[in-house]
Amino acid sequence: MARTDHFNDPDAPRPNSIVIAVSAFVLDKDAQLLMIRRTDNGYYALPGGRHELGETMTQTVVRETQEETGMTVEVTSLVGIYSNPDHVMAYDDGEVRQEFSICFRARPVAGAPRTSDESSEVVWVPRAELAGIEVHPSIRLRIDHGFRTDAPPYYT
Amino acid sequence: MARTDHFNDPDAPRPNSIVIAVSAFVLDKDAQLLMIRRTDNGYYALPGGRHELGETMTQTVVRETQEETGMTVEVTSLVGIYSNPDHVMAYDDGEVRQEFSICFRARPVAGAPRTSDESSEVVWVPRAELAGIEVHPSIRLRIDHGFRTDAPPYYT
Repeated sequence: MARTDHFNDPDAPRPNSIVIAVSAFVLDKDAQLLMIRRTDNGYYALPGGRHELGETMTQTVVRETQEETGMTVEVTSLVGIYSNPDHVMAYDDGEVRQEFSICFRARPVAGAPRTSDESSEVVWVPRAELAGIEVHPSIRLRIDHGFRTDAPPYYT
Repeated sequence: MARTDHFNDPDAPRPNSIVIAVSAFVLDKDAQLLMIRRTDNGYYALPGGRHELGETMTQTVVRETQEETGMTVEVTSLVGIYSNPDHVMAYDDGEVRQEFSICFRARPVAGAPRTSDESSEVVWVPRAELAGIEVHPSIRLRIDHGFRTDAPPYYT
């Protein structure tokens, strides 16, 4: 399903839904960041997805990262809570979702990168190369916060 | 609307909804905790409620605390993220909600305590008296974490 992000856009459609989403900031031992290329909007992004009934937050992080990247991870700390009514995601079925997403730091414990229906590429990106790839500003914010391991978790 | 909490109950009904809720751990200058007595289940609890479209998390905390207690507060830090599939709340319209709630520390900046449709009492409780009042275990957990200001935020 196609998705269009509206970020600080005065002409954005009005949101009609909020769902709970998570994302994972996963660094390997060489400090490379695990990223996917999303099939729904073409951007590079952190793996993640929707919190489901029957799960804790960290179980959602582990399941979504496994589904989208093939990697099994272990959650290590909280990056932040991203709740921004000026960031909405419009889907082609009429849903206009207001951002609500929680980002966790995690480390890989098993697996090997592979793509999925939701991820056309899965890559380990060295920090020096992050500036050169197409990443949505809302994800860029989470990445910046992910590297700030001495700061308290972000929230708005 | 009446609400029944099931906490680590093997006979609990299966959840069919998750909504985003917040609560506020508000201490005054004498380290007394702002509490309400809930009209839906009779327990003493922290003020809080449902995150609505158009709000950030902290705006929800400020609005719900104002509605339920009459106090205007300012959010100061994050206590934790409470997502426990073994805590469900059954409402008499058939909704069975899985817990998802974020708790923030806050301080009072204006107002005076008064009750509301959702709060039959609004009280400042000295820490030494907290053990003697009827508080649900899930709220007791948030209160314990609220006092641990040197710990990183809780999550599961």
